[in-house]
Amino acid sequence: MCKNGEENYCRNGMTGTYNARFTHEHSPGYSAEGKDHCEPTYGGYSRDIVCDADYTLKLDKSMPLDKTAPLLCAGITVYSPMMYYGVKKGMKIAVAGLGGLGSMAVKFGVAMGCHVTVISRGTKKKDDAMSILGAHAFVDSTDAESFGAAKSTFTHIVDTIAAKHDLHQMMDMLDINGKLIMVGLCPEPLPLQGFSYIVQRKQLVGSLIGGIKETQEMLDFCAEKKIYCETEIVKPEQINEAYDRAVASDVKYRFSIDCSQL
Amino acid sequence: MCKNGEENYCRNGMTGTYNARFTHEHSPGYSAEGKDHCEPTYGGYSRDIVCDADYTLKLDKSMPLDKTAPLLCAGITVYSPMMYYGVKKGMKIAVAGLGGLGSMAVKFGVAMGCHVTVISRGTKKKDDAMSILGAHAFVDSTDAESFGAAKSTFTHIVDTIAAKHDLHQMMDMLDINGKLIMVGLCPEPLPLQGFSYIVQRKQLVGSLIGGIKETQEMLDFCAEKKIYCETEIVKPEQINEAYDRAVASDVKYRFSIDCSQL
Repeated sequence: MCKNGEENYCRNGMTGTYNARFTHEHSPGYSAEGKDHCEPTYGGYSRDIVCDADYTLKLDKSMPLDKTAPLLCAGITVYSPMMYYGVKKGMKIAVAGLGGLGSMAVKFGVAMGCHVTVISRGTKKKDDAMSILGAHAFVDSTDAESFGAAKSTFTHIVDTIAAKHDLHQMMDMLDINGKLIMVGLCPEPLPLQGFSYIVQRKQLVGSLIGGIKETQEMLDFCAEKKIYCETEIVKPEQINEAYDRAVASDVKYRFSIDCSQL
Repeated sequence: MCKNGEENYCRNGMTGTYNARFTHEHSPGYSAEGKDHCEPTYGGYSRDIVCDADYTLKLDKSMPLDKTAPLLCAGITVYSPMMYYGVKKGMKIAVAGLGGLGSMAVKFGVAMGCHVTVISRGTKKKDDAMSILGAHAFVDSTDAESFGAAKSTFTHIVDTIAAKHDLHQMMDMLDINGKLIMVGLCPEPLPLQGFSYIVQRKQLVGSLIGGIKETQEMLDFCAEKKIYCETEIVKPEQINEAYDRAVASDVKYRFSIDCSQL
């Protein structure tokens, strides 16, 4: 997988930047004595970081750092499955959930030339979805008339909801042969009815971030199309407050920590 | 969908041979007054049947009728998704559940040049799976050592189990990018954990029988490869008994009703 540019699916387990250990033989802090003896990885909340050159990425000079940083997670996490599962120009797609991942999926979909609908609970996020993110339509998943009108409509739904929600409702809005792309990790199992995917040959498909090669491709795409994450900059001393606000979904759409004064 | 040879996914609803009505405008028994006024379709338990020529299929003279009949349902139901979802020569695939659908999936997999493993509860069906159906390996899903050894092994699992079972266990046996092909309609929703398909980019995919064009293709493939369903012939007066035995899974692997004396 690594040689194929898909380090994120490494059969020996990928090495995360945060809260991980150097468990691969060629790594600097590796120990043959076992995982607990391998050194921890260095994290990213710092001014400088030591990194294997194969795992660095090039940014175009035009890219604003604070709005580019979240692309390395929220951005690639939706870009990768949109490419892998065949999202193409002219398709009608939808994005469920409008946090960091969802906001980026809307921007990518628009930039790829798709007709993009946002699916959200209530209409609170409608104005932002249409005016700031550029979505073409909006479905309120709590309003039977609204989601009923979207039945059998979308080739793909990028489902970014990391909490319990109704998969049958999502499947119902997919067209025949449609794909429900799951990128939000819900902590509890979700019930799934056979009828919702068998009768019209639908698919529920997963994806986990992306590899270095595709991340570079995404960054180049973003620089070309001027696609960035909507962010709010915080200073290191504000991160506890920012954390609480992130948990409460009170952020549009990602915090970036300014580490320049560390 | 109909013009594309996929009548089974018709947007206006397909017309079944059994227990359905002629609800399409061009059909002989159609009524514009609504579904309840349309004539019922004719069923198949008879010596003769009137059928639109577009919905008839050609059988090679070499094909035994009793062993060919179940191909029109159990056969095409597994053949279609195996083709659509990319089962190819040299792949390691598995078949879960060994009834009418499962037995055909094993035969197709073997004929396509795959390495085929049967996944079943207990070892009762092991001998038949290997000797009669031609499977290459066997996994007992009730034995932790047996299914543990199959972790991350298969490109595809054809899951024909129409009852409650552990989807996470199936997902776990799929390799990275693997596909769990669901063709058994379980009456109750099955819980599905995000981790089981997100972390290694796995897919849970549905499929419903197949269209006329692909059914003909399958029949030609079966005639060429001499692939037939294992059947037990019953007379019309035995169908109540045969029904009870089918419910109790006491049939290898399908009953064929001999209607020649009707």
